[in-house]
Amino acid sequence: MLNFENDYMRGACPEVMQALVRTNMEQSLGYGDDPYTGSASEKIREACGAPEAQVYLLVGGTQVNALAACAVLRHCQGVISADTGHINHHESGAVEATGHKVLALPSHDGGKLDAARVRSYLQAYWADENYAHMVEPGMLYITHPTEQGALYSLAELAGLSAVCREYRIPLYLDGARLAYALASDRNDISLKDMAALCDMFYIGGTKCGALFGEALVVPRPGVVGNLFSLIKQRGALLAKGRLLGVQFDTLFTGDLYVGNARNALAAADRLAAGLESRGYRFLAPPQTNQLFLIVDDGVVERLRPHATFSLWEHLDGGRSVIRFVTDWATSEEDVDALLALM
Amino acid sequence: MLNFENDYMRGACPEVMQALVRTNMEQSLGYGDDPYTGSASEKIREACGAPEAQVYLLVGGTQVNALAACAVLRHCQGVISADTGHINHHESGAVEATGHKVLALPSHDGGKLDAARVRSYLQAYWADENYAHMVEPGMLYITHPTEQGALYSLAELAGLSAVCREYRIPLYLDGARLAYALASDRNDISLKDMAALCDMFYIGGTKCGALFGEALVVPRPGVVGNLFSLIKQRGALLAKGRLLGVQFDTLFTGDLYVGNARNALAAADRLAAGLESRGYRFLAPPQTNQLFLIVDDGVVERLRPHATFSLWEHLDGGRSVIRFVTDWATSEEDVDALLALM
Amino acid sequence: MLNFENDYMRGACPEVMQALVRTNMEQSLGYGDDPYTGSASEKIREACGAPEAQVYLLVGGTQVNALAACAVLRHCQGVISADTGHINHHESGAVEATGHKVLALPSHDGGKLDAARVRSYLQAYWADENYAHMVEPGMLYITHPTEQGALYSLAELAGLSAVCREYRIPLYLDGARLAYALASDRNDISLKDMAALCDMFYIGGTKCGALFGEALVVPRPGVVGNLFSLIKQRGALLAKGRLLGVQFDTLFTGDLYVGNARNALAAADRLAAGLESRGYRFLAPPQTNQLFLIVDDGVVERLRPHATFSLWEHLDGGRSVIRFVTDWATSEEDVDALLALM
Amino acid sequence: MLNFENDYMRGACPEVMQALVRTNMEQSLGYGDDPYTGSASEKIREACGAPEAQVYLLVGGTQVNALAACAVLRHCQGVISADTGHINHHESGAVEATGHKVLALPSHDGGKLDAARVRSYLQAYWADENYAHMVEPGMLYITHPTEQGALYSLAELAGLSAVCREYRIPLYLDGARLAYALASDRNDISLKDMAALCDMFYIGGTKCGALFGEALVVPRPGVVGNLFSLIKQRGALLAKGRLLGVQFDTLFTGDLYVGNARNALAAADRLAAGLESRGYRFLAPPQTNQLFLIVDDGVVERLRPHATFSLWEHLDGGRSVIRFVTDWATSEEDVDALLALM
Repeated sequence: MLNFENDYMRGACPEVMQALVRTNMEQSLGYGDDPYTGSASEKIREACGAPEAQVYLLVGGTQVNALAACAVLRHCQGVISADTGHINHHESGAVEATGHKVLALPSHDGGKLDAARVRSYLQAYWADENYAHMVEPGMLYITHPTEQGALYSLAELAGLSAVCREYRIPLYLDGARLAYALASDRNDISLKDMAALCDMFYIGGTKCGALFGEALVVPRPGVVGNLFSLIKQRGALLAKGRLLGVQFDTLFTGDLYVGNARNALAAADRLAAGLESRGYRFLAPPQTNQLFLIVDDGVVERLRPHATFSLWEHLDGGRSVIRFVTDWATSEEDVDALLALM
Repeated sequence: MLNFENDYMRGACPEVMQALVRTNMEQSLGYGDDPYTGSASEKIREACGAPEAQVYLLVGGTQVNALAACAVLRHCQGVISADTGHINHHESGAVEATGHKVLALPSHDGGKLDAARVRSYLQAYWADENYAHMVEPGMLYITHPTEQGALYSLAELAGLSAVCREYRIPLYLDGARLAYALASDRNDISLKDMAALCDMFYIGGTKCGALFGEALVVPRPGVVGNLFSLIKQRGALLAKGRLLGVQFDTLFTGDLYVGNARNALAAADRLAAGLESRGYRFLAPPQTNQLFLIVDDGVVERLRPHATFSLWEHLDGGRSVIRFVTDWATSEEDVDALLALM
Repeated sequence: MLNFENDYMRGACPEVMQALVRTNMEQSLGYGDDPYTGSASEKIREACGAPEAQVYLLVGGTQVNALAACAVLRHCQGVISADTGHINHHESGAVEATGHKVLALPSHDGGKLDAARVRSYLQAYWADENYAHMVEPGMLYITHPTEQGALYSLAELAGLSAVCREYRIPLYLDGARLAYALASDRNDISLKDMAALCDMFYIGGTKCGALFGEALVVPRPGVVGNLFSLIKQRGALLAKGRLLGVQFDTLFTGDLYVGNARNALAAADRLAAGLESRGYRFLAPPQTNQLFLIVDDGVVERLRPHATFSLWEHLDGGRSVIRFVTDWATSEEDVDALLALM
Repeated sequence: MLNFENDYMRGACPEVMQALVRTNMEQSLGYGDDPYTGSASEKIREACGAPEAQVYLLVGGTQVNALAACAVLRHCQGVISADTGHINHHESGAVEATGHKVLALPSHDGGKLDAARVRSYLQAYWADENYAHMVEPGMLYITHPTEQGALYSLAELAGLSAVCREYRIPLYLDGARLAYALASDRNDISLKDMAALCDMFYIGGTKCGALFGEALVVPRPGVVGNLFSLIKQRGALLAKGRLLGVQFDTLFTGDLYVGNARNALAAADRLAAGLESRGYRFLAPPQTNQLFLIVDDGVVERLRPHATFSLWEHLDGGRSVIRFVTDWATSEEDVDALLALM
């Protein structure tokens, strides 16, 4: 079976796994009071150029997103998201379960939000006579790369950031697949840019070489208070916090975090080129490690016994959108074998 | 000042007020254990042709809507609503505050939901590979008349009911202005129809002649359990439950509930005819006691010192939508005076 | 039937009822934007000597208590209450439903909390190595008079206030029956004292002469922000806010609010004296309009056909505690008739 | 430094770690749809003698406890717990954050609940005239071993189970340190007993040899529905579910789960014997891998530079309770070195 279903089918990249094995019998304090967590946090602060940043190491993405929303939002506030945003569609209502509405706006170009549209939404809200009867927009949520693999440009991110500052709402960036953006030569947003422009973001580990784990970064103090108790209350506090510390400490030593992603991007590019040369069409031009392909339903049936992939959407006329995802370990042989099936 | 801002600017219709005065010094048990509440519930059951119905008398509409949603929905379920639905826009996120998503679908013809669209939404949900990661549609919310004064036909309501039964989700009808539907000759849905086709609905009192109060009806047992404790927990249990009992007992004696609305409809028809004859255009053909008028912004400014009304929406080109509402006490003189200003 | 079950069995005192009737056909803006609400708030500010106070007029006590808790508490905070406190026992878990723990401490002398005990609880919390894993005490809740009719002294209230300020947590006072304290010559706490010593409190109307309604007072700005949207979200915003405004405006004109209570206290004193002379014992010395009497179960059975009262608690040895409550309209004849039954 | 602070200071036992390394490059479906999770669940079902059990593999204990509470409890229900219960004290109000009260009862003999006391609490609740205004007991929570290391006897567990069945509330057992009970010759409760007597329980991995992870078991269908979406919504769904599957599959192969604990118990016994022979007194007779020792504060200060341990409680008279915990890797040398310091 050829596996292109997603980028979290394997365990950890070798360096991370070795670090976990090497430190396995060390004894350290729990809940993040260990030296690895301290070191990982420090390296992330440096990479982000944010010496005062709060860094929280957590287990999974939905956990981080819901935590961020409920840490930041006040009563009666909601979070603006693209209608295609992960929090709007694929987290079983985790944000609403914290009591807050997701305010969905139409997206463009593969799941991106446009600064002008966000501004006009905020303007209209505050201009409404009855705004106090409506959910107040209290945070902006974006993903980079988006759920459909698209990349914001630095100019676009700066535009969104400016709107957020004008209306004094925090900008939160979901970086579940951030490594694949950072490693791409189509991307011009650095971690330092993110720290300067966003008020909270998370650096995804689970899909980017870690065994599991995400690093929530709050670049400047004052956006949220200390989140320790809230993390505990939400069942998101790992007793052996060191496990997360060791992983992020390893990923942020040298170039490992981004390096892992480079392989995935090379494999995705090879796959995209092969598919294009075979005449396949994409839902949107591939930008990172996710390819969204429009195929006849017959192709879906033909592939199923031989490869895993996601059936993204049924289209009219007997066609579907399917998704192929590459990861840090996808080999050229895997890609070529998949191409041979198409 | 001429008041057309809404239908809850005055107190109660005379009969209700007299009943409250007449019973004021009687002593009765609290929390609904009084004879008036029993009698009112019985009359409502009769009017609905639903001898087994649970009836809960509550104070306000947002309170009832949020109660109904949280009573019915299981974890990870949401409620389908028109995008223009009151729970989606004008209740400060009350449903989300109970932990449940509002699943907004586009509306048509003045805030109505279409059975075919609801069916296709439900179909798509259950056909999605990842449905368990998505909010499950667990209830359908409609308003009758809608927020824009439109009326469902009996056929339309039956269509929505059939979809809900096919997918086994309860149909809930928000009847904040129900009297104005029941009193209209454009309406073909009776209380008995509602009891047969809906799983929960409420009969609005606040906007229809009561001092305050709404009657939640659950026509058939089993949809929800006993709601007493939940009503208490949500701060919605009136200590002097009798106040609600006396009012609904009065409104459902003879024809009072519908009769109150007839005057409002007559006034609205007179107003609509006068406006049309002066060349004004409506956002949608007026059906009940709310008129949505498209006017130049100059008209808005000219009216403001003389009349109250709602500024509904700013349109492009220096125009706006404004709303006039009539009530059980609006006189022909009031209507004519307003027309004289237009 | 002689009714001594509680102080919310009748409607409103005559002056309040007349004011509602008198203003019934006036048209005013909804949601508290009416002149009566403005006037009532101003009179309450004056009575409290708190010219900057926020005043919110709401419908019921559980509604106010849960609103206050969720407005004030941050994530992971709880509210300290006497174990006998209304929020701990008789509100169906309304505070917990907002996500916050009630931290119950033992009470003394009829439901009161002791400053020394509260201080030692707060001290122990902050001294605990693992405090961040525990619910942080974030507010102190007391009732005055207590659920058992007892009165704090000014010195006791000042002591609790000092502890709260030392630990920077707001002090909230539930005044569901506040009029019966203010009218008592056993009480030395004025509204001005409460405004000076508490951070939030509510002036009960429902049990003290109003048809319904409670006035939440936040004496100094900054404790909570504007609560309008939260009140709406919690279904606690009365469309016809004027109904509350008219009532509190009337109650705070002249001496009416306290005057109503004086009759209840006189009746309670007469009843207590009569019971004592017949050899009955009280659970605690009567201080306000509630009497808690220890009786043989035979007395309970003998009374039931003739009078309403609360069966408070079963004791060992075939005895029970029963409660008699008087109100603003209890007559000497009622009292004497009840005494004749004992 | 000698580490006796807790049993989650190291990583995983060697067998678990090797299994994670061995399977690291395998690709499997996410969210628990992998063969290891299937195999682990099957082995757990067998060990529990519960062929129809639902098994959910989760990351941490607070996560499981709050999930279980909110999955089982209906609106207005709470969970009965010992006052010393983990959910009542050390989970930052996680259960209350789901909207449910923890109903704390006094504990005895090191954190245990007594069936007679639980029964009398349930009896009193349902006998109360005002029970509908009070939080309904909807679940019983116990820990085995308790937070203080004590063990229920089979008779005691059967007694609690009988009360729960009489009052039709589920019995939930928190087995964070369950291995240390199962491995003890002072214990007479097997996994099969637990499956027969409890309605939900979890088998702790984090503190018992796993890298991380807890296995929630629902022995008989119908107690809760499918929890998948709720787990997702609560941020508790591990993308690489296989990581949990591999660990529990390994722990439940042969005797590993219990075997790990035997070493800890042997070390604890050696430590207890050494302490007793030196004249130290315990808070309660040691039963599992946690020892609670009463010491002069001087001992605390003397130990601090050389050993980690928990300061459990300050006592009067310059004494404290400290806790030593052993684990699957504690050596005789560690124990003897600690004893040499005492």
